Amino acid sequence: MALILDGRRIARTLSWRHRDEIADIQRRLGHPLTLAVVRAGKNKASASYLGQIEKLCRRVGMEYQEHALSASDREQFIGRICSLNVDPRVTGIMLSWPLPSEWDPELVAMTLDPRKDIDGLHPLNAGRVFLGGQFLGMEAFVPNTPAGVIYLLRNYDITLSGKHAVLIGRSNVAGRPLAALMIAHDATVTVTHSRTVDLPSHTRQADILLVAMGRPQFVTPDMVKPGAVVVDIGINVTPGGLVGDVQYDEVSEVASAITPVPGGIGPVTNAMLVANTIRAARLQSTVA
Amino acid sequence: MALILDGRRIARTLSWRHRDEIADIQRRLGHPLTLAVVRAGKNKASASYLGQIEKLCRRVGMEYQEHALSASDREQFIGRICSLNVDPRVTGIMLSWPLPSEWDPELVAMTLDPRKDIDGLHPLNAGRVFLGGQFLGMEAFVPNTPAGVIYLLRNYDITLSGKHAVLIGRSNVAGRPLAALMIAHDATVTVTHSRTVDLPSHTRQADILLVAMGRPQFVTPDMVKPGAVVVDIGINVTPGGLVGDVQYDEVSEVASAITPVPGGIGPVTNAMLVANTIRAARLQSTVA
Repeated sequence: MALILDGRRIARTLSWRHRDEIADIQRRLGHPLTLAVVRAGKNKASASYLGQIEKLCRRVGMEYQEHALSASDREQFIGRICSLNVDPRVTGIMLSWPLPSEWDPELVAMTLDPRKDIDGLHPLNAGRVFLGGQFLGMEAFVPNTPAGVIYLLRNYDITLSGKHAVLIGRSNVAGRPLAALMIAHDATVTVTHSRTVDLPSHTRQADILLVAMGRPQFVTPDMVKPGAVVVDIGINVTPGGLVGDVQYDEVSEVASAITPVPGGIGPVTNAMLVANTIRAARLQSTVA
Repeated sequence: MALILDGRRIARTLSWRHRDEIADIQRRLGHPLTLAVVRAGKNKASASYLGQIEKLCRRVGMEYQEHALSASDREQFIGRICSLNVDPRVTGIMLSWPLPSEWDPELVAMTLDPRKDIDGLHPLNAGRVFLGGQFLGMEAFVPNTPAGVIYLLRNYDITLSGKHAVLIGRSNVAGRPLAALMIAHDATVTVTHSRTVDLPSHTRQADILLVAMGRPQFVTPDMVKPGAVVVDIGINVTPGGLVGDVQYDEVSEVASAITPVPGGIGPVTNAMLVANTIRAARLQSTVA
């Protein structure tokens, strides 16, 4: 049976450390750290996610603001982002996804102050991640999901250097930056996606299999090399509850280590949002 | 015997087209397009490269400026970049590599106006490439080498979608952006490098093998799958002359198509520099 990679445990430890760091920074700044979320319209899935983030902010001693704007007024939405950009009391800004489908997400992301872009959406931050995850000696704002994957693997002392990591998925928030980070960590990296021919022939070669496709329980045990580390980044709402992209029980019989869903990557990802907000505070003030 | 992928022929055709485009833009702007190269100190290899670029600029009707600055004064170097940034007569700025080893190349690249950064060095441009090669509907400034590779492959109608592309090398000017572009073109992409274990086991799987490691004639026929397309991005000066990273004669017996060195990727890469300067002109003026 595979080792269960317990994201909840890691996130708990991180939240204690973050609470101390945030209290310390707040003392020196003279005001609290604030995470501002900007959303357009309503969405059930994102409301539940934002609820988690709000709870987490409270736990680590950070203020949480939710800016609920109309889905029919893009200028007002961008105007709010720009107000938050220049507001010195706001440490980090997060956009709630999805944006209305008729808005250009790249244009909206470009309006974020890169120093407050804790989700790493601005192309300036994406470029820094792409160029190795560091820039001018500073850690870049890595999008939370890939940051969480790397953090979890390293926390379990799983070697990345020289390993063959195979990714399923190439999204801008998960697959692409995760590939860049795995390359920076000296893994040999294969990126597969919807156009890949004979997917199992690739996944079966993986020492580390990273799955971020958003298809419930797609990865079956015959797609996994015995002894592989399997990281399930998918979160799918099904009639039977929350499931990942991997058939957890069956793949556990083959893998040497595996992340459950829920309780795997998700909690670590949320903790990375806090870590990025702390990083943003340090980037914005020399006393933080 | 493999089809020879003739970069000189493609570059010649491109230079005719570029000459017409540049003449047309110049007419509308009322002044010539200018490529400014900034270099610190002297370097024999880069002097020969800059000689090629100057000749190419003359051929396509573009002005070429070479700014030779001291290798011991970084502030003066950056000051010159910033003067060129704001000079409306300068269309594109290229830094000559290598920079003095004690200078931080990231800091220098950050001082470039992203709209004149025809080498795609600024992280803002790197980020745009990373996020798929397009941004807000505009083509990004793709570094010349990966842009040249994609251009050459497409010019020969070599299908990228669904193909397994294996790269050797992960530099910020070749391997990394080329991986991003191949993913954007729907290839399944494996990135290998100096830390890869059992490199031939990866290269032998490649439908398209892209070699950018800078080790003369490293790739031998036994590393190549019969029928593969082999792109040699290496340029190595040896006592026997200029050679690539691939054993050309021997690999030609195995591959279905191959780029020679010289006369393969090099000339197309130079043409991409001109294409990016034209793109920069259009980005800077609505009449261009």
